[in-house]
Amino acid sequence: MTQNKQILVREIPRGALTESHFEVQNGVLPTPTAGELLVRTLLISLDAANRAWLQGPTYRQAVKAGDVMHGYVVGQVVQSEAPGFAIGDIVAGEGGWAEFVVMPATEASAVPPQRPLSHHVSVFGIAGKTAYHGLLQIGEPRAGETVAVSAAAGSVGSLVGQIARLKGARAVGIAGGPEKCRWLVEELGFAEAVDYKAKGFAKALAAACPDGIDVYFDNTGGAVLEAALFQMNLAGRVVCCGAVSQYDTTDMSSPRGVPGLIVVKRLKLQGFIVMDFAEHDAQAVAELAAWAEAGDLVVVEDVISGLENAPAALIGLLAGENRGKRMIQVAEEE
Amino acid sequence: MTQNKQILVREIPRGALTESHFEVQNGVLPTPTAGELLVRTLLISLDAANRAWLQGPTYRQAVKAGDVMHGYVVGQVVQSEAPGFAIGDIVAGEGGWAEFVVMPATEASAVPPQRPLSHHVSVFGIAGKTAYHGLLQIGEPRAGETVAVSAAAGSVGSLVGQIARLKGARAVGIAGGPEKCRWLVEELGFAEAVDYKAKGFAKALAAACPDGIDVYFDNTGGAVLEAALFQMNLAGRVVCCGAVSQYDTTDMSSPRGVPGLIVVKRLKLQGFIVMDFAEHDAQAVAELAAWAEAGDLVVVEDVISGLENAPAALIGLLAGENRGKRMIQVAEEE
Repeated sequence: MTQNKQILVREIPRGALTESHFEVQNGVLPTPTAGELLVRTLLISLDAANRAWLQGPTYRQAVKAGDVMHGYVVGQVVQSEAPGFAIGDIVAGEGGWAEFVVMPATEASAVPPQRPLSHHVSVFGIAGKTAYHGLLQIGEPRAGETVAVSAAAGSVGSLVGQIARLKGARAVGIAGGPEKCRWLVEELGFAEAVDYKAKGFAKALAAACPDGIDVYFDNTGGAVLEAALFQMNLAGRVVCCGAVSQYDTTDMSSPRGVPGLIVVKRLKLQGFIVMDFAEHDAQAVAELAAWAEAGDLVVVEDVISGLENAPAALIGLLAGENRGKRMIQVAEEE
Repeated sequence: MTQNKQILVREIPRGALTESHFEVQNGVLPTPTAGELLVRTLLISLDAANRAWLQGPTYRQAVKAGDVMHGYVVGQVVQSEAPGFAIGDIVAGEGGWAEFVVMPATEASAVPPQRPLSHHVSVFGIAGKTAYHGLLQIGEPRAGETVAVSAAAGSVGSLVGQIARLKGARAVGIAGGPEKCRWLVEELGFAEAVDYKAKGFAKALAAACPDGIDVYFDNTGGAVLEAALFQMNLAGRVVCCGAVSQYDTTDMSSPRGVPGLIVVKRLKLQGFIVMDFAEHDAQAVAELAAWAEAGDLVVVEDVISGLENAPAALIGLLAGENRGKRMIQVAEEE
């Protein structure tokens, strides 16, 4: 056990991300020092934000050429140089695309006993908390209001629409293609779903929201955000969660109507990261778990086996091929 | 007293507003019916928002061709058909560009006894409340933070910078031309002022805000908003008060970086109208009055005599020729 398969960033992409921007190599098993843990990677979260990390510093440091690709992982401790953690413990935190990662104990969090473990990457993980906090703390939907969400078939969007419904709002999903749209309505309980790739999307969105949009949860930016802005009601809230339409380009152009529509409609647009609301994490997990156990919330996971498949899986996620939370299974819990 | 000089909108502008879009006429003195007041106009507020009213419905109904131009007025009751109002009372409310207007009593508010009367159009009026509520309720500046404001020499901006300073923040003004900028620093106590018409404006703004911008009070939109967005600190607040750079055009293009910068920097952008915070009006007027009386707040007014001068005065305001609150004096209090 001295080998450590890992995936490096060979080159920072200047346009669309391709597999040639990554490189698999057999690295050396890292050695934890005092205060650190050696962790065997079990699951790696794939997120649109991974692409943004390759564009420069965001809410976290940028990934540079030559780095092991960064990623949020759930893993099992194989060597502990920190009090409070023992061999076999399941932990979660910032790691990388590698079979083994070293994690500072201060940045590792113990994973609660609920299983399957994948739920700690999806509904109890960053995706679930992002959907829950973003929608409820920033969007503040009231019963009877219309909540629209883009990338609605994705990890966060699929939860946002369901949480909105469970809070008494009318959920309208925006997704790519008629099959995803049907699935959102038939399987996840969205009131309506609109295909942003179809001709006449903006009109279809307006038709699906006859009372306007009160809360728009934006994962995409771009033309979809523009269409939503024009449908927002007075005093509407726009939850700015991501801009996946722009991560894979160097285009910084913006939707029309800023700030005019913000002024005239008295809108609030607000960005956030999930850590901003950490004080509400326990409540989020408890409510999400209760809904999931009662069968009111469908947890959709898209688990792909094999570390070496991570680059293609991320590229596919940016193209919208996933449903629900996409992750890489690197190894099984022991 | 059967004549009523008034200014009509002859034609809705499709590009820049000109005097030919207006027409002076001698109308008939209107007759108030039950619940209404006949009011002699004393002062008419001129606001960049007047131009926006000519573009279509905003937070209020649009002005149409053939209408008497709408405006916020302070006037004196000459005939009352409503309980609670007597001849001679000074009232304020929505009126128009006319010597006499009819006002529903439910939409007229009694003007408090402080004089000069012009202060009820400026610092105690909509401009003062807009600056006070927008900055404090949405911007929430903390002592030591940097507050930038565009159209800083205007009615709202000149107050925003001074209120920011009085609350312990560092006020940076953005205005057109070196003379206005000097005046902001020397007469109104701004820490720095930056000329948006000068070459290298974005760099000059960055230099004037070495610790970044925590609160940006936006009256302009456009290129100035874009420059500010790029300088915003994490968790910064953008008060979306107006978009004067865009009122006089049909251009709806937006600053670059939306929603990318909102997501990455976790910004809040929020529009509002002053009525949203009416519950805090009494506190606003009390604090503004105390500052003004103590000489800590300079109230800048730009009073132009003669109803017939309103079109040219509004056009000049849109071009930024005013300092402080511009208004038209139609008649004197009797």
